[in-house]
Amino acid sequence: MFATRIVVAYDGTDFSGWQVQPDARTVQGELERAAAEMAGHPVKMRGAGRTDAGVHAEGQVAAFDAEREIPPSGWMFGMNRGLPPDVAVRAAESCTRGYDPRFDAIDKTYRYVVQTGATRDPLQRRRAWYVRGTLDVEAMQRAANGLCGTHDFRVLRAADDLRENTVRTIHEIRVTQSSELVAIEVRGSAFLKQMVRIIAGTLVEVGHGRATVESVAALVRPDAKREDAGPTAPPQGLTLVRVTLGRENGSLPLGQ
Amino acid sequence: MFATRIVVAYDGTDFSGWQVQPDARTVQGELERAAAEMAGHPVKMRGAGRTDAGVHAEGQVAAFDAEREIPPSGWMFGMNRGLPPDVAVRAAESCTRGYDPRFDAIDKTYRYVVQTGATRDPLQRRRAWYVRGTLDVEAMQRAANGLCGTHDFRVLRAADDLRENTVRTIHEIRVTQSSELVAIEVRGSAFLKQMVRIIAGTLVEVGHGRATVESVAALVRPDAKREDAGPTAPPQGLTLVRVTLGRENGSLPLGQ
Repeated sequence: MFATRIVVAYDGTDFSGWQVQPDARTVQGELERAAAEMAGHPVKMRGAGRTDAGVHAEGQVAAFDAEREIPPSGWMFGMNRGLPPDVAVRAAESCTRGYDPRFDAIDKTYRYVVQTGATRDPLQRRRAWYVRGTLDVEAMQRAANGLCGTHDFRVLRAADDLRENTVRTIHEIRVTQSSELVAIEVRGSAFLKQMVRIIAGTLVEVGHGRATVESVAALVRPDAKREDAGPTAPPQGLTLVRVTLGRENGSLPLGQ
Repeated sequence: MFATRIVVAYDGTDFSGWQVQPDARTVQGELERAAAEMAGHPVKMRGAGRTDAGVHAEGQVAAFDAEREIPPSGWMFGMNRGLPPDVAVRAAESCTRGYDPRFDAIDKTYRYVVQTGATRDPLQRRRAWYVRGTLDVEAMQRAANGLCGTHDFRVLRAADDLRENTVRTIHEIRVTQSSELVAIEVRGSAFLKQMVRIIAGTLVEVGHGRATVESVAALVRPDAKREDAGPTAPPQGLTLVRVTLGRENGSLPLGQ
């Protein structure tokens, strides 16, 4: 058995998310099909993490084992020939058999993009959430700082995320503006379901002046309630930018 | 009669270009429909210029007359409610009745984007032409300089463009690179059909080392032949960035 680790980019618009599901078009499903065609046997693709329906990736990481010895660049170019236009392998290298990036991921970086202004930009509609008006980016950054560190993020997750351990570490959140686009870049150890989208929705409330910097800091305190957080921002604004790997991190370029 | 001038943005992917045609989805057609719904009578939309099927715009300019007096912002927000997600009015102001931006346009700026690298980026596929490998951006810029000025561009146009006068002025071409993306920004007085896409295809030949800087300068000399130029680059890489207006140029923000 030979093992290969790949960096994958996709436009999530027309996918039902990363994870294989019956009767749904998924990124994992497309990758497993393309790899199986080359391998000549079924292939199980192990991803560094799931992304929801409609969420994009520049630097998702996955790994798989195969019985045939094919060099990493062979997998990369071969799989790309078999993959549809909205998903591609951007880099590949050999790794240890059974390697699972989920357990090797040190942190992940997501970017959430909001388009502001008086009118929507049709050219941004697949990559950004349109929010009319202007946002107070400085207030958003101050509120974001209150979420950094190790906290219980239980109110900043989807209602159907029932995991017991809801303590996570956010290393950094940067809120930047470039003309009409406001980007919220979040780097953390791991994330609860829809956590980045709820953070984005909450920070937009602050940007509009409908929530205070203090109220956001209170969301990670023991008495916080889900209704104190903002809405879940829609999926098209979210991109998994990169996954930082640990022990086995080789020369693989991870994300852009 | 009241007249309004608008700046329009669109994702050209699913349009058969700007100009109204029978049984085709066009930008002009969508705008005329949305304006007519508000005006209560048919509306003729006068564009600053046509764009081909699949070509995008950040700052197309159009103008129209209507019998009802509606303030520019009313047209802008009202039309946007009636328009599909891939086209929007980004700015509006009053203008003189019968005003035609085609005759008021001093110059137009187009951007052509090429994605380079070993593998295609699915997130760029609707906005860039994927060209494998790297491009010599400096050589492309030197070749581009040879096209600037007032020349006969007859070999740099679509075969079905039969206009007699093929002399045009290119004020500036800037070739820049930002990680994997190479942008060719062309500002000129006016353009022949597919002229920017043929310039882009020609400059990519230079970037690959398959054409020389000198051969590009020769394309605007009297003995030039169409087959000396490069291929027509595909439409998805092209965006009409802005139209500079003359006499009647008010405060309208034109393009991004």
